[in-house]
Amino acid sequence: MTKTNPGRFFEDYTVGQTIRHAVPRTVAEGERALYHALYPARHALYSSDDFAISCGLDGSPLDDLLAFHTVFGKTVPDVSLNAVANLGYAQGRWLRPVWPGDTLRAESQVIGLRQNSNGQSGVVWVRTQGLNQSDEVVLDYVRWVMVRKRDADAPAPEPIVPDLASVVDPADLIVPEGLSFTDYDFDLAGESHRWGDYAVSEVIDHVDAVTIEEAEHMLATRLWQNTAKVHFDATHRPDGRRLIYGGHVISLARALSFNGLANAQMIVALNGGAHANPCFAGDTVRAWSEVLDRAPTSAPGIGAIRLRLVAMRDGGTAGTLRSADGKYSPEVLLDLDYWALMPV
Amino acid sequence: MTKTNPGRFFEDYTVGQTIRHAVPRTVAEGERALYHALYPARHALYSSDDFAISCGLDGSPLDDLLAFHTVFGKTVPDVSLNAVANLGYAQGRWLRPVWPGDTLRAESQVIGLRQNSNGQSGVVWVRTQGLNQSDEVVLDYVRWVMVRKRDADAPAPEPIVPDLASVVDPADLIVPEGLSFTDYDFDLAGESHRWGDYAVSEVIDHVDAVTIEEAEHMLATRLWQNTAKVHFDATHRPDGRRLIYGGHVISLARALSFNGLANAQMIVALNGGAHANPCFAGDTVRAWSEVLDRAPTSAPGIGAIRLRLVAMRDGGTAGTLRSADGKYSPEVLLDLDYWALMPV
Amino acid sequence: MTKTNPGRFFEDYTVGQTIRHAVPRTVAEGERALYHALYPARHALYSSDDFAISCGLDGSPLDDLLAFHTVFGKTVPDVSLNAVANLGYAQGRWLRPVWPGDTLRAESQVIGLRQNSNGQSGVVWVRTQGLNQSDEVVLDYVRWVMVRKRDADAPAPEPIVPDLASVVDPADLIVPEGLSFTDYDFDLAGESHRWGDYAVSEVIDHVDAVTIEEAEHMLATRLWQNTAKVHFDATHRPDGRRLIYGGHVISLARALSFNGLANAQMIVALNGGAHANPCFAGDTVRAWSEVLDRAPTSAPGIGAIRLRLVAMRDGGTAGTLRSADGKYSPEVLLDLDYWALMPV
Repeated sequence: MTKTNPGRFFEDYTVGQTIRHAVPRTVAEGERALYHALYPARHALYSSDDFAISCGLDGSPLDDLLAFHTVFGKTVPDVSLNAVANLGYAQGRWLRPVWPGDTLRAESQVIGLRQNSNGQSGVVWVRTQGLNQSDEVVLDYVRWVMVRKRDADAPAPEPIVPDLASVVDPADLIVPEGLSFTDYDFDLAGESHRWGDYAVSEVIDHVDAVTIEEAEHMLATRLWQNTAKVHFDATHRPDGRRLIYGGHVISLARALSFNGLANAQMIVALNGGAHANPCFAGDTVRAWSEVLDRAPTSAPGIGAIRLRLVAMRDGGTAGTLRSADGKYSPEVLLDLDYWALMPV
Repeated sequence: MTKTNPGRFFEDYTVGQTIRHAVPRTVAEGERALYHALYPARHALYSSDDFAISCGLDGSPLDDLLAFHTVFGKTVPDVSLNAVANLGYAQGRWLRPVWPGDTLRAESQVIGLRQNSNGQSGVVWVRTQGLNQSDEVVLDYVRWVMVRKRDADAPAPEPIVPDLASVVDPADLIVPEGLSFTDYDFDLAGESHRWGDYAVSEVIDHVDAVTIEEAEHMLATRLWQNTAKVHFDATHRPDGRRLIYGGHVISLARALSFNGLANAQMIVALNGGAHANPCFAGDTVRAWSEVLDRAPTSAPGIGAIRLRLVAMRDGGTAGTLRSADGKYSPEVLLDLDYWALMPV
Repeated sequence: MTKTNPGRFFEDYTVGQTIRHAVPRTVAEGERALYHALYPARHALYSSDDFAISCGLDGSPLDDLLAFHTVFGKTVPDVSLNAVANLGYAQGRWLRPVWPGDTLRAESQVIGLRQNSNGQSGVVWVRTQGLNQSDEVVLDYVRWVMVRKRDADAPAPEPIVPDLASVVDPADLIVPEGLSFTDYDFDLAGESHRWGDYAVSEVIDHVDAVTIEEAEHMLATRLWQNTAKVHFDATHRPDGRRLIYGGHVISLARALSFNGLANAQMIVALNGGAHANPCFAGDTVRAWSEVLDRAPTSAPGIGAIRLRLVAMRDGGTAGTLRSADGKYSPEVLLDLDYWALMPV
């Protein structure tokens, strides 16, 4: 019998099932440095221990997306090895910062199943939690994927589709203990724009662009211990191209968004997201954001801002999103909806 | 007179000679993170401090191959700058873990010399030790290389060929102090297969594959401070190709072997190894293993497994090794023979 | 109104103006490891904590050029976003080591302005200081760049051209507190040549070469949070090439200079420097040095050596510098003039 992991197929999931994912990972100063080498990341809270201390933290946490990718990577062998498509995210919340030296692991619960009408595949909804070495939840999100069936004749499960919020209620956003923006240094942060300076429906062109190389996205994706073959094996697809991990595009776009959103310091919720089109090495990636909403918080000097972050390959311009038929424009790579914390 | 290092030629070696290699190197969290970015490494003992602590260690040691490459790199300017070929390894043992913050240096003793019949070159056998900042030996191995003569008319030394064991006796394997697999968490480790589940002569196809980029192998080889020109200088060979450091292929194959050998946690001995064919950027590397032997240890819950690890470029399949004429098949890049520790 | 940074134009500068640059950055073990992966760096003082301790320091500092690039990167959004050319450096001094865990920030003062006769641009001189978390200056240098005017009709400022020394007086070199080369281990450092073994006007061919990849220079330049578009965006120039950050060539050449100058351990002053020609991925870079001067220091066992470090792309040989017309030869990438500390 084979000793290697064939991955789970649609009929291997049952609603209520809990999966403890391998392999726990200690993340530290090295991962922080690599994050800065892989993405043009400059948000001051994640760049400088001193800046973070001046904001009431004990030091600079690891990037929120570094935590996301690490947790996500652990789920791949159990959730998406036989996935046909990554369909969506919802109800994502960062519940506490990840500090250098923390060890992260992940658990997922199957919360929904619906076989496709073609009988060949189905949709699996999982709620994933990232936990640290003290078993505290650092991240919690729902993701759904389309997964192949092993046996097309296997009976369809009773369809259960979870009721998911389209946006995290701002009252449910968690501000890390101690965080305060009352003594915020706008010079050191890089921009003078406050929470109150952003208007709902305002669009920001982040101007800068990065052309992606194969070595870069593979270094990143390995760092998150994401093992999906399509990212690494040029012989896997007939066209010899390696598909770039969608999370690489998320981090790249978020880092590019510094230019115009330097003070959107901390990501606290992921309302939704779509990897609109595949990204390949050689693509030159740009980004734009739209302000979707604003909400106060009870934390000192801190407001929440809801942002749409769109990544595009060359050819797109700020505002490019959908074609007349309602489908994503071919240049659009990512359409992400998140809440961030800003100084008021 | 030139101030640069011309490297040693065959007639510069004498049996019994000891060489203290430059440059000592402190290895820490950064090297750990880079190891995970460069290779799809997932063995839990090296990924998670908590997992390592649950196995009786003080924290997660640095990868055994990271220690090997660092020590090996130090020997290159003194041993293989004028080498024509890297002929073999024997009697390699890891004697104690390398921890983040340790400083490694290397010393080699010349233990054998034999001039080739053509008078142009000869074989040099060295026994190399890697030492930490407390002068404790962390690694000990024999390597032999073919080295050019500076002057073909220089007299041949008396041939001395060391008597090398073809395999490290399992009784000589060192289990790190405190290591115990009695509370081993198979879920977190990623696979359920125990030492007793592997049968001698069993072959495991590790399934996954990675296509190598120039930037990746150069980042790795520089990190080990290996200065051999062929790895970095595209003008060095007439065909403009950079030869990939053989150790890069070792680490890549070992990391790929997680899929099927996730519980072969710790490498404790290197019985032998051959870099069967050169590897170049663009090669898609796969791996397979064969169980060569099993031996109990006196440590709690720990068995030793002897494995053949074979790396192949595209075209090879699990089991591909030698052609009918006994030579390595052209797809085979690496044939490595090692002992690892597994939970019983 | 746009929220993104348009950069400063020539008429935005006034002599005496002070700019506090964003974003502070904590540099640690991860940056150290990446430096060793990106460049073939082997100087023992920066490779081994133990070696550094034997030289009287508390541990191994971060590479002097890592400090330089980090500080330089912070100035880019304020000084060189609209720069046409990076014209020169002068009076650079490293005033204290940067240790893992230090947080660096940068401030610049405008010390000179001169509009060009074409009225389209002008030269801006800035004196930049890098400071650590205790507000101690770690690095101090002058740099001048040619910057475009926003409005060609804006009035020219009164020209003020600072009086800059062509070389840092050896009496002004700062030797870090405690540094001593009296117990220097030449074996571990990699070469036996002392300060007294180098003669003024001696030329050293550093022999080794590295072919640069796109992924490598982008990883490095991002790590220094240098945001200049030309380094990352293949669509920015009509020829589709990404210009390599000049500092990447400085670090590469300095690392290559180990072979022949292994004991030129610490860079203490930057007398001047020119990026003679642009460097692109695919270039194979070599280096040579010329001894320009020597000076004693009052520190134990330590001499200062003034070196010209020249980087060339393929086609150049040791000594290649200028053509008959006095212009840099097309192969020359870098002409750097610095002071380093060596064991006497």
